[in-house]
Amino acid sequence: MELILESTPDSFAQLAQRPQLNKTDLNAGIETIFQSVKTQGDAALLQYTEQWDGATLEQILVTEAELAVAKTLVSDSLKAAIELAYQNIYAFHIAQREPVQPIETMPGVSCWRKSVPIQKIGLYIPGGSAPLFSTVLMLAIPASIAGCREVVLCTPPQSNGSIHPAILYTAQRCGIKTIVKVGGAQAIAAMVFGTASVPAVYKLFGPGNQYVTAAKQKALQYGVAIDMPAGPSEVLVYADETAIPAFVAADLLAQAEHGKDSQVILVCPNQAIAEAVLREVKQQTSTLPRGLVVNEALLNSKAIVLSNAQRALDFINEYAPEHLILACTNSTFFSEGVYNAGSVFIGNYTPESAGDYASGTNHTLPTNAYAKTYSGVSLDSFIKKITYQHITEKGLQAIGSSIMTMAEAELLHAHKQAVAIRLNYLKTLNY
Amino acid sequence: MELILESTPDSFAQLAQRPQLNKTDLNAGIETIFQSVKTQGDAALLQYTEQWDGATLEQILVTEAELAVAKTLVSDSLKAAIELAYQNIYAFHIAQREPVQPIETMPGVSCWRKSVPIQKIGLYIPGGSAPLFSTVLMLAIPASIAGCREVVLCTPPQSNGSIHPAILYTAQRCGIKTIVKVGGAQAIAAMVFGTASVPAVYKLFGPGNQYVTAAKQKALQYGVAIDMPAGPSEVLVYADETAIPAFVAADLLAQAEHGKDSQVILVCPNQAIAEAVLREVKQQTSTLPRGLVVNEALLNSKAIVLSNAQRALDFINEYAPEHLILACTNSTFFSEGVYNAGSVFIGNYTPESAGDYASGTNHTLPTNAYAKTYSGVSLDSFIKKITYQHITEKGLQAIGSSIMTMAEAELLHAHKQAVAIRLNYLKTLNY
Repeated sequence: MELILESTPDSFAQLAQRPQLNKTDLNAGIETIFQSVKTQGDAALLQYTEQWDGATLEQILVTEAELAVAKTLVSDSLKAAIELAYQNIYAFHIAQREPVQPIETMPGVSCWRKSVPIQKIGLYIPGGSAPLFSTVLMLAIPASIAGCREVVLCTPPQSNGSIHPAILYTAQRCGIKTIVKVGGAQAIAAMVFGTASVPAVYKLFGPGNQYVTAAKQKALQYGVAIDMPAGPSEVLVYADETAIPAFVAADLLAQAEHGKDSQVILVCPNQAIAEAVLREVKQQTSTLPRGLVVNEALLNSKAIVLSNAQRALDFINEYAPEHLILACTNSTFFSEGVYNAGSVFIGNYTPESAGDYASGTNHTLPTNAYAKTYSGVSLDSFIKKITYQHITEKGLQAIGSSIMTMAEAELLHAHKQAVAIRLNYLKTLNY
Repeated sequence: MELILESTPDSFAQLAQRPQLNKTDLNAGIETIFQSVKTQGDAALLQYTEQWDGATLEQILVTEAELAVAKTLVSDSLKAAIELAYQNIYAFHIAQREPVQPIETMPGVSCWRKSVPIQKIGLYIPGGSAPLFSTVLMLAIPASIAGCREVVLCTPPQSNGSIHPAILYTAQRCGIKTIVKVGGAQAIAAMVFGTASVPAVYKLFGPGNQYVTAAKQKALQYGVAIDMPAGPSEVLVYADETAIPAFVAADLLAQAEHGKDSQVILVCPNQAIAEAVLREVKQQTSTLPRGLVVNEALLNSKAIVLSNAQRALDFINEYAPEHLILACTNSTFFSEGVYNAGSVFIGNYTPESAGDYASGTNHTLPTNAYAKTYSGVSLDSFIKKITYQHITEKGLQAIGSSIMTMAEAELLHAHKQAVAIRLNYLKTLNY
């Protein structure tokens, strides 16, 4: 981690830049996959799964029997942990429901809006080194609260053709019926076009590698929505002398272990704290099994000393961190002043791990400064809001001439006529 | 309008298809414009404005003097109409604010979320035949309620270099300070990259022609968000024997006058009503100044007879109309059963024109079946929601072992360690 002393605001934009990724243009390859899946359906999925996951499958959908076996393979302690996380995530997300609340904008003019579920959604859960069953919770719980009618989960099989039992167990717990053993861009293509086994969906959720990310971008071009644009995970910790350096270091390392393209940023009001944390980082790194990944991520990372709190807040807002940890006395100043962040963790006993798994907030959050524009996943991500209006005869008489004046000024005569014809009719009724 | 009798559900998907547009690939041209604006800034904007709008400008920003003149050019009756619309739109959108509501998911584990404005946004208002000042209201009012700090409005000048006074007046009324005389893809590029006169923004809103639409898609690739994907406007009217055919026809024609690629759909429980409406359509069309546009749009349009109400509802949900007008006795059946629509207009005295201008709901709505996935513009479009959490010592002790169990199962040891180090420390304090 590079130590940077007292930056000035004119350097903030540059300092806030994420490590540049070597972006290969994957578009041509992805388009080929999309076209194969579109024309050959399940056959293409089976062939790609053999080619890239090394798994020869007879059946691409997870069976009831496999689900039953998975239940027996998950330990009771993990089941209990998943259950606690489930309840907390459920409690936080169900409170996000919005009641229908009619507004009478004028006498006789009633307007309201109603949340309705997106009917068909697709969840992508990566395979690879770690079975991300926590992401199943984070996506499937709000989808189920929203009432999405069709939920498909795609995840690549291991080379023996199986899916990690924790993923299958969690998906069952969340009520997901359709689990497909397919990963990569072919999984995204399957959910965009639909195949004999995989239903087409309207919106795609979930993290993935560069192929999945590129495929989700292509899905947009085919009219399928996505949760948010993707980028490497990151954390920014603001720590003052009331922070405990060992805790701060542990939080930085938890972020760094996600991948070598992760970035961790430490901001401190003085150099002594920064150096105490850096010493702890060094010491704790040596004990971690993912030390190599962590060390690479730390090369992208910075410890920045900013003695002025307002300036530190300005930098935080410029950086727009996915995760912001506030380990400081003046946490209210920062938590109330921050306007660009995904999720904020306040105090010495609120590690990011808590939000990653079990506190109740969602861990699918905007990275790569997208927190300037996007929210994390929430119940909102799984619904649409339809607006309604009902106008009475009196209401139309009150509002009609304004509509006609505006329509005329916009040269939209038929718009004016739609009101005029009604008002004229009401006159004939002596209204 | 083609009359279609008693379709069966297996034909709904085909029947719900929008007219295929001749999609020219504009990407190369748009990329050239983006690169010119990126490298040459305002100079490129002035040159493009001369080339395409025929206006030679010395100054690309609207001046205070121009704003003052505009005020004098708008009639008092139009000002009053705009004011009434302003108040209703304001009333409907301010009710969409969400209070901060902390949830204690477990004792000692508090989570909440807070809405914060997207700091920098850009509004695009088309020029051309009609001055769409109503769209200024629909975008700028929720932006101002949200508290967006920087709001830029771009709109192409007329060939004499001026902007229509109704647009300038409305923008002023909504508190917009930065109005730029630039249209087309170059306006979008300016708001993506920023120039000396035009600030770069995080999210783009507003309708536009095929160049603007393509440029907004490209903006996404540069990391700038957009309100929603675009397509031609459309309405679906469900009318039974209690509807007044002349009103229904007027509503269909109001939609048809938007453009020759607009589509209007009439669904009726029997043929007699459909035919009565079609007769009225024919008759009213002859009186409209935009008759040519209307007639072309009507070629894309259909009157569909479905005697079974559930089947009619199923078709509506398959079509996913931008606007849905319910002129029928069983409007509750339809308004409660519809899950794919942008905005719903209930009853004989609720024309779409009301929502287009002044009832209070937003007129920026998802077209082209995007109502299956997207909401119309609302306050939500201008904010992000940041999640927060605070965990006490006791809270972490209650939740900690679950987090550690899950982190271990996901092979994320540093995530586990971030909790373990805190719990061990608490033990040393005899907590």
